[in-house]
Amino acid sequence: MNDAIGELTRSLGADGVLTGQDAIDHARSPWTRLGAPLAVLRPRATAEVSDILRIAHAAGLAVVPWGGRTGLVDGAQADGALAVSTERMAAVEHIDAGAGVMRVQAGCPVQAACEAAEAQGLLLPLDLGSRGSATIGGAVSTNAGGNRVLRYGMMREMVLGLEAVLADGTVIGGLNPLIKNNAGYDIKQLFIGTEGTLGLVTRAILRLRPRPTSHNVAFLAVDGFDALPRILRRLERALGGRLSAFEVMWPAYYDLVTTAPARGTAPLPHGHAFYVLVEAMGGDPEADDEAFERVLADALETGELADAVIAKSDAERKALWALRDDVAQTARDGPILAFDVSLRIEDMPAYLEAVRARLPRPGREDPRLVVFGHLGDGNLHLIASAGDRSRETVRAVERAVYDPLRVVAGSISAEHGIGLMKRDFLSWSRSPAEIALMRTLKAALDPAGILNPGKVVGPL
Amino acid sequence: MNDAIGELTRSLGADGVLTGQDAIDHARSPWTRLGAPLAVLRPRATAEVSDILRIAHAAGLAVVPWGGRTGLVDGAQADGALAVSTERMAAVEHIDAGAGVMRVQAGCPVQAACEAAEAQGLLLPLDLGSRGSATIGGAVSTNAGGNRVLRYGMMREMVLGLEAVLADGTVIGGLNPLIKNNAGYDIKQLFIGTEGTLGLVTRAILRLRPRPTSHNVAFLAVDGFDALPRILRRLERALGGRLSAFEVMWPAYYDLVTTAPARGTAPLPHGHAFYVLVEAMGGDPEADDEAFERVLADALETGELADAVIAKSDAERKALWALRDDVAQTARDGPILAFDVSLRIEDMPAYLEAVRARLPRPGREDPRLVVFGHLGDGNLHLIASAGDRSRETVRAVERAVYDPLRVVAGSISAEHGIGLMKRDFLSWSRSPAEIALMRTLKAALDPAGILNPGKVVGPL
Repeated sequence: MNDAIGELTRSLGADGVLTGQDAIDHARSPWTRLGAPLAVLRPRATAEVSDILRIAHAAGLAVVPWGGRTGLVDGAQADGALAVSTERMAAVEHIDAGAGVMRVQAGCPVQAACEAAEAQGLLLPLDLGSRGSATIGGAVSTNAGGNRVLRYGMMREMVLGLEAVLADGTVIGGLNPLIKNNAGYDIKQLFIGTEGTLGLVTRAILRLRPRPTSHNVAFLAVDGFDALPRILRRLERALGGRLSAFEVMWPAYYDLVTTAPARGTAPLPHGHAFYVLVEAMGGDPEADDEAFERVLADALETGELADAVIAKSDAERKALWALRDDVAQTARDGPILAFDVSLRIEDMPAYLEAVRARLPRPGREDPRLVVFGHLGDGNLHLIASAGDRSRETVRAVERAVYDPLRVVAGSISAEHGIGLMKRDFLSWSRSPAEIALMRTLKAALDPAGILNPGKVVGPL
Repeated sequence: MNDAIGELTRSLGADGVLTGQDAIDHARSPWTRLGAPLAVLRPRATAEVSDILRIAHAAGLAVVPWGGRTGLVDGAQADGALAVSTERMAAVEHIDAGAGVMRVQAGCPVQAACEAAEAQGLLLPLDLGSRGSATIGGAVSTNAGGNRVLRYGMMREMVLGLEAVLADGTVIGGLNPLIKNNAGYDIKQLFIGTEGTLGLVTRAILRLRPRPTSHNVAFLAVDGFDALPRILRRLERALGGRLSAFEVMWPAYYDLVTTAPARGTAPLPHGHAFYVLVEAMGGDPEADDEAFERVLADALETGELADAVIAKSDAERKALWALRDDVAQTARDGPILAFDVSLRIEDMPAYLEAVRARLPRPGREDPRLVVFGHLGDGNLHLIASAGDRSRETVRAVERAVYDPLRVVAGSISAEHGIGLMKRDFLSWSRSPAEIALMRTLKAALDPAGILNPGKVVGPL
């Protein structure tokens, strides 16, 4: 082990290897439990990542990739392992504006990548709450979702090429900018959404879109669940591909983000059954504004919509989005447990009723469940007041959320991933044959089990 | 072997197993070399496919999946193997119009799936020349592309869930309709674009889109290559997500499809450097028509466009598309070799010049090269007159097309796949490490090497 640290220091330089208290200090995060790594490694380039894996492989040391460490499933927990931080691989290396592609290093923060694209008149349509800290490598490794999946797909759809390093240090250099490439197996898929358990992502080529010139945002009030999918389909049809977000908030969420100490103010009266933030982006401001207003007017006229307000300036658009982004309010009254499930829209009302009925009731109060999410994608975020954070309470809340999901064939993770936190529930959403196949893959690509061990598929 | 045939007959029934001359007769195809299969199997359901693989695995017999058998890379060649035809698994099982998803069996023809979606007011945006014969299972297994990739992505983007059977008969039942599902590895990716070498696709859940209510098609003439990407980007920006096709034809292709014996007539005068079919689809007919006319008028005014004609009726739209679809004309003057490459748009002119310079010249005539393709995706189809079809000539033409592609890091297959035909050239587009990783996957999922053996990654 000391030999391995010595060899790593020779490869990365002294400032590339933090050990002891330095490593533990570096591992502090408000978001996720990182544990006490054996060392924190800070490579500067792919060749150094390859060195790390070659050395770790020979020494049988576990390797845990660290991006922004804002994941929510303990996927970066690195107790006793070599944590490989991509913090010094944060460059936007190249943008080809004509072709609409960018090449970035894994450690590049999502927001920096988005801003670099925007500066060239282009759009990287990845829009996450954690945009300031999450990295491209982390977004690829977790197949990140976010607010615009409805239109642009998840991270998987934005990745044209990937460079990754295998467990033994082999570099897989697939930095290809081609939109269509059926030359053999599409092996980059192995590294997307597998949370660093099959290889470490070092660089990516991402597909960019033209930056829209129209931007319409509205806030809607709706009085019955059944109207929500009807409004969604109406908008999809009428806006012909321009609809980019359909974010639904249940009243408990709306109340939290529009009352002090939250800074947001209510754009529509309280008391409705649902609130929806909708967004459309296009290329023809005048016609797009008109079409957006028209479809909302039509929906008001049919009674599908109870009320609506359209943002009239960039400041107003930002204020509406700030409500959706102010997720921190859900934690203001005590400990919470956050979930990220997906299911068919039609199953949502009965599912949420079943969850509420099963949540544990510490004391006499009703358990609080705050719900919001990307309804267009079937993705809901559930925030449950935990009462306490004992192992028993946590498990009881998890069972309350996941057991009814099994009945409707939903997914225990729409976008956050599995990490350590949801590993025990993987079989709620996947069959034994599917999990066995995942383990076949893991054994084939990481026979020594050194890549982010224990995450996703558990110990082999 | 006879034991195995007996066991298969017991499982599938006598009409489910064709042998001897019956098998050879069933194997005739004008499109692809199918060889002389040991037997042609015609399962009716997933359980029978599972039986086939279990029996074949035990007996060490090769299994080759057959869909529409209109592939272009000899991926269905089944000499001495059990050919598994999905012809009796052709049903559209279910459409959930509210959720916008459909469940189909692998043998369902693409066109039948598209028509079933359309009947429910929805769109399955897969548009291939072989739509009448190609099957959904084949389209999934080859990650089919086609005319609308620009907007809707390839087959990979349309697949929400897959059911597949592994080499040993294990059924992987991932028939999940969720748009977002990060519950562990996305194992369906293993069966998309891997040409039946890692498992056999039996059913799929496909994502449908709202059926557009506006449909604009135009035919353009352009006099310089540099203007093509400028026009493409202009349309993308102005049409804000509605642009669904940008199909470029080089003059030799345009001449072929607009002169007798072709039935098409020229919508614009001959003599221009390039012709482009553009299509947009949206949800607001009046506004969309106007925006489409406006952006073309703008491009004419700047001189980017030399000429343009907009289809004014459904008959006119069909007539323009018929030109693009009349690929059969390229074979009317003798044997041809068809290629399907992708590369960066900016590399195309120099690449095509290099190909022309290298094509073998039998006799004194110039070799003929017909070019057309999905320029927006970087995907060109090259049709070379072979002169003769001797092994030497074929190899010389292949080298003429592929060698210059290597220089520009292009792909030897944008959408057709590798099969047997391009296997020797896989290393032109993939590194040794990438090919080794493909073989690791193949060995892990098909250790006995019975699944479509020899295809894509070659013999193990």
